[in-house]
Amino acid sequence: FSKKPLQVFESKFPQLRDDFVQHISKFAPLPVAADRLHKMLDFNCVGGKMTRGVTVMTATQQICHKANIQHDELAEKAIVLGWCIEALQAFFLVADDLMDKSETRRGRPCWYKLPDVGFDAVNDSLLLDSFIYFLLQHYFDGGNNTPASPTLYLQLTNLFQDVSLRTKVGQMLDLMSQPQGRKGPELLKQFTWERYKLIVELKTSYYSFYLPLACALLVTGHNQPQQLQLTKKIALQLGQKFQIQDDYLDCFGDPQHIGKIGTDIYDHKCSWLVVQALMRANPAQLQTLQDNYGKDLGGPCEARIKQLYRELELPALYQQQERQSFDECVASIENVPDDIPKSIFQDLLDKIHDRKK
Amino acid sequence: FSKKPLQVFESKFPQLRDDFVQHISKFAPLPVAADRLHKMLDFNCVGGKMTRGVTVMTATQQICHKANIQHDELAEKAIVLGWCIEALQAFFLVADDLMDKSETRRGRPCWYKLPDVGFDAVNDSLLLDSFIYFLLQHYFDGGNNTPASPTLYLQLTNLFQDVSLRTKVGQMLDLMSQPQGRKGPELLKQFTWERYKLIVELKTSYYSFYLPLACALLVTGHNQPQQLQLTKKIALQLGQKFQIQDDYLDCFGDPQHIGKIGTDIYDHKCSWLVVQALMRANPAQLQTLQDNYGKDLGGPCEARIKQLYRELELPALYQQQERQSFDECVASIENVPDDIPKSIFQDLLDKIHDRKK
Ligand SMILES: [Mg+2]
Ligand SMILES: [Mg+2]
Ligand SMILES: [Mg+2]
Ligand SMILES: [Mg+2]
Ligand SMILES: [Mg+2]
Ligand SMILES: [Mg+2]
Repeated sequence: FSKKPLQVFESKFPQLRDDFVQHISKFAPLPVAADRLHKMLDFNCVGGKMTRGVTVMTATQQICHKANIQHDELAEKAIVLGWCIEALQAFFLVADDLMDKSETRRGRPCWYKLPDVGFDAVNDSLLLDSFIYFLLQHYFDGGNNTPASPTLYLQLTNLFQDVSLRTKVGQMLDLMSQPQGRKGPELLKQFTWERYKLIVELKTSYYSFYLPLACALLVTGHNQPQQLQLTKKIALQLGQKFQIQDDYLDCFGDPQHIGKIGTDIYDHKCSWLVVQALMRANPAQLQTLQDNYGKDLGGPCEARIKQLYRELELPALYQQQERQSFDECVASIENVPDDIPKSIFQDLLDKIHDRKK
Repeated sequence: FSKKPLQVFESKFPQLRDDFVQHISKFAPLPVAADRLHKMLDFNCVGGKMTRGVTVMTATQQICHKANIQHDELAEKAIVLGWCIEALQAFFLVADDLMDKSETRRGRPCWYKLPDVGFDAVNDSLLLDSFIYFLLQHYFDGGNNTPASPTLYLQLTNLFQDVSLRTKVGQMLDLMSQPQGRKGPELLKQFTWERYKLIVELKTSYYSFYLPLACALLVTGHNQPQQLQLTKKIALQLGQKFQIQDDYLDCFGDPQHIGKIGTDIYDHKCSWLVVQALMRANPAQLQTLQDNYGKDLGGPCEARIKQLYRELELPALYQQQERQSFDECVASIENVPDDIPKSIFQDLLDKIHDRKK
């Protein structure tokens, strides 16, 4: 490639978007419908960091190189799978922003906040989900009766369905940390480290870390259960590190860097910070947590929680966690057997370690 | 069967629900999560007329009888597919009620209206969608590497994805009749008969009429393109009749029978009534439509529209449409070739003809 991976990846999007819009235009031949779809896909699929999508592309390249597999014809398939993951991400973000009543995303208003969108965003989110399975069918299914490679198509659709279900269950657990109309002390008691790890694994790690690597493995024929299992184990380690960073930056990051103002304390989230605070608090500090967590936005309760986090020296604990999780990931990566290139994990670790946004 | 079809069909639900909840409990072993899922599935999947689900069951029976196929082992599969369609229906209804800001459904408050649900209903709707593909995989996929009947599983997942996408596009067109923040005369001009037929086909007919019959055909091995095409043609005829009834009853039906108060006029919907009114209105009546359509709920504008519908004798036109569509369906059913039993269409026609709810 003479171009950078991100540019190569991005340049494929217009064709995939047009494939989908043209497919729909065959049974719904209305220019207004095509225009709206086009605009909706552009707004929601493009503009992020696209780490997930680019990872499928670069990991596929590295696996092919290591295994001496002809990469040329797999390169396009890897990019399509990368865009399937970006579509999955867009599907979840459109729905998540509406459920979280968020204001901004990627430094712009959320899609549902646009005046001619509103709650119609729910259906747009569902269309983004269908975009995934359209792409899989269009590029991987050779037809119902004589599938070109039925096993790969089946593996991919089952993989996306499985990861999608886990993410939805993770979202459900995340939402149950702050169910509509009831926040409070009895919920706070449930914010254990075990529960935290489970929520993070399901809502973040599977789709953000395991899915891109699993796509690269499957498309290159590395579909042995032990290969996928090992990849899952390291992906979940990386995902946990990533989500702990996300939780820390929500409170202590620079809003200018992260593109939004954190609301985890107000939203009564089961964040790494509150889980650590609960484990370290004395009875008086526990009372402070119960009295102030989830109470106001940008007000004295939120400030009191942040102050408590500093009293408990959570910023220093976070620095320690960052170093320790880095070392643990490095150790796991060192043990990766020869049939999978270590670099597919190392690249992800390098991308996320010590991130400020 | 000694029991009635609806009872047989309903009695299978607890097992399918438990299959799904147990599957999720394997990777999210939290009793609170299992309880919430259980409650959400019960609330949203059960309580409707279940015509779609029961149709898969009874149509499969009739096709087996006619073709002399052993029915016993297909009976369970047909019921599972029926519940996949009921899950699809639940998925769409939970999302639709939220987008339409509806108050009641099946004579009860809508799911999103419950105090501890709210916008979390968006994610619940997504979980209902995953329920479909879980059931298909659990009952039809023999595993990734040695699928028991890969072709049927592929056909079914592709069928559900295709019908689901069409329904979402139909919803998009339906929502574009009343986009957030802009209703009015320029939109009303787009409510043509051609556009009406397209919206109805996509948002209603595919999933309500074609999908149950296509499931029965596929599960019994009737997967010839011409068999599916013919079935689609009659299904779309039945679906159009059904949606015209729905539109008529929204305005002129008995709220006690239909379980809700109609809001199509207020919602500026592309309803059969307004499309017919636009075709028959003189310039003064057109002005009345433009001045009053979509303006208030239960107020003078809505009353003025209803009065105009009566002036244009739409109730009499509806009676004529009911007779005519019945005759047209009967004519199509008479031409069904011998490999498909006519009764699978006739039963649906008998169920919907002249309905008051
Ligand atoms: Mg959010
Ligand atoms: Mg959220
Ligand atoms: Mg966050
Ligand atoms: Mg509705
Ligand atoms: Mg609606
Ligand atoms: Mg209606």
